Amino acid sequence: MEIAPVKWENERLWIIDQTLLPAEYKIIPLDTLEAVVDAICTLRVRGAPAIGVCAAYGVLVPLKELKESRSSLDNARQCFFHALEVLAATRPTAYNLFWALARMKEVGVGRFQDVFDFWQALENAANRIYFEDVERCRKIGEYGADLVPDGGGVLTHCNAGALATSSYGTALSVLYAAKNQGKEFRVFADETRPLMQGARLTAWELASAQIDVTVICDSAAAYVMSKGWVNMVIVGADRIAANGDTANKIGTYSVAVNAHYHHIPFYVAAPFSTIDRSLLHGGLIPIEERSGAELGQGFDRPVVAKDAKVYNPAFDVTPHDLITGIITECGVLYPPFEESIRSALQTQVNCIKH
Amino acid sequence: MEIAPVKWENERLWIIDQTLLPAEYKIIPLDTLEAVVDAICTLRVRGAPAIGVCAAYGVLVPLKELKESRSSLDNARQCFFHALEVLAATRPTAYNLFWALARMKEVGVGRFQDVFDFWQALENAANRIYFEDVERCRKIGEYGADLVPDGGGVLTHCNAGALATSSYGTALSVLYAAKNQGKEFRVFADETRPLMQGARLTAWELASAQIDVTVICDSAAAYVMSKGWVNMVIVGADRIAANGDTANKIGTYSVAVNAHYHHIPFYVAAPFSTIDRSLLHGGLIPIEERSGAELGQGFDRPVVAKDAKVYNPAFDVTPHDLITGIITECGVLYPPFEESIRSALQTQVNCIKH
Repeated sequence: MEIAPVKWENERLWIIDQTLLPAEYKIIPLDTLEAVVDAICTLRVRGAPAIGVCAAYGVLVPLKELKESRSSLDNARQCFFHALEVLAATRPTAYNLFWALARMKEVGVGRFQDVFDFWQALENAANRIYFEDVERCRKIGEYGADLVPDGGGVLTHCNAGALATSSYGTALSVLYAAKNQGKEFRVFADETRPLMQGARLTAWELASAQIDVTVICDSAAAYVMSKGWVNMVIVGADRIAANGDTANKIGTYSVAVNAHYHHIPFYVAAPFSTIDRSLLHGGLIPIEERSGAELGQGFDRPVVAKDAKVYNPAFDVTPHDLITGIITECGVLYPPFEESIRSALQTQVNCIKH
Repeated sequence: MEIAPVKWENERLWIIDQTLLPAEYKIIPLDTLEAVVDAICTLRVRGAPAIGVCAAYGVLVPLKELKESRSSLDNARQCFFHALEVLAATRPTAYNLFWALARMKEVGVGRFQDVFDFWQALENAANRIYFEDVERCRKIGEYGADLVPDGGGVLTHCNAGALATSSYGTALSVLYAAKNQGKEFRVFADETRPLMQGARLTAWELASAQIDVTVICDSAAAYVMSKGWVNMVIVGADRIAANGDTANKIGTYSVAVNAHYHHIPFYVAAPFSTIDRSLLHGGLIPIEERSGAELGQGFDRPVVAKDAKVYNPAFDVTPHDLITGIITECGVLYPPFEESIRSALQTQVNCIKH
């Protein structure tokens, strides 16, 4: 089963509403800029690469009407800049969002004959971002597959699967590729509180792909490691600083500390579009804090005492010294990451064919 | 507000149904052995010391009818042994359960004139276990209060509060005593998946006691520590081996590893009734595995993909070398625990006045 969380078809943007999984697999259209913003903010579409692709197409959504009504280029350009601004304000941590919008902007500020010309250039740019992401993820899988322990156990946190990207995924792309190589392994999926992306999405994806998957509470990861059941940890990333420090779903840092304590290799899988060269270290990555109400979300009864405060950071930062390697579309980067990232960024244009 | 999760009143056993908290504060009677067993198995009553007290009184529950019908002593004794057996099979990890049943058995095997005499001896024994537990917990608070950082932050996991004991609690008794000393501090309560004892019970208790409490996802504990917000970790215990290895709610071990990594002192608070001298180390402690369905329990929609396996251990073991000290009713024990536990056990009879 091919999973495509973001699709552009007949000049309409479609997404899988991931908040409904695993109970319901529903594809919904996003026909207004507001709908795109809402889908990103409420995690109907989530995962750093998928957010980037959705935002790239999202720019086109409000322009469609202007194109069809043969609006002036000025009007269209104004609408375009507004869309860039509004989309950039949806979520602060995933770098791919800003990366994709910057690429769209780069195209959009060019010279055009009319609104049709403008539209076509932007549509081509968004399609390029989409197809590149598919290819990047495929290559991440290829490069990472060798690292997966045949006959061993792998632990992952949150969902860095096909649902988080255009296709294949990042961390899970590695597992799919290893499976295709004929490797046998067992995956422990942290349920990933508060929104349960591990239990809902990763488990659904892996089970659909006939990969042996066991859901555990996030807090059980250390215990499972202590039993010797985990030979590799692999996670995705929302933003990677120039020195390799990695922001990812809250709880990733705890998993990394525990992997370190148990001498288990800890890998991050991410395309270059996740690397933010402008930030020297992870302390500079903006961390989204979400509503405390998320901790009780989806329960049929109150599960948080009402007079208590709630602190709900959506991400944390894993320092580079806890990371064994970063699996990218150009190969696996190893420490010192400042150097390996810099040198890989210089050559990465050759990794993905446009 | 005084919290008494287990009460013996007018020859009836009453408990707070903790599965209903924080939405509803409901006290229910347990009038049959089956009801007592069910209440322990479904965590209506939970927390190692409270389970012990509940089981001690639970032995009386099926005997009441025999006493009132002036049954033979033989019949009563048969019923008594059956109750001991059935209650011992409810939950495998909390040592206080077996400790309390052993104390009841010690009394019950004595010589009696008739069923009234038998009943009275057992009721006295259960009351003694109850009142001792209150006193033990009070003393734990007294001894631990000095360790609480004035103006600092404390992190706790699960609920080792009044709800988990006869009164006061173990870990939370320390916080209540520190508060009474006039100390100001902030508590982070791990929500404690899957059954949310931290969010539901600890937060409710602490907020009721006007202690500043913030609920976080279990996986956020490491991140909160990395921010420098935690100066002390304190948890309860379900069973402590002779060398100090401690079984406690799943996730405790992860917290301990993270505390170690962040150089934060990690304390266990527990009465001597939690120490199992017969086990040389924590690897020998039986760990209860509960139904995987608990991960989706209470949600109004499916949150675990249906084709995925689920692994749901209820406890884990924190090795003694990650524990800074064990706060008991006789004072704080420090490493080497094998020695400090042995020597404290020799003198503990003097700690609690009967």
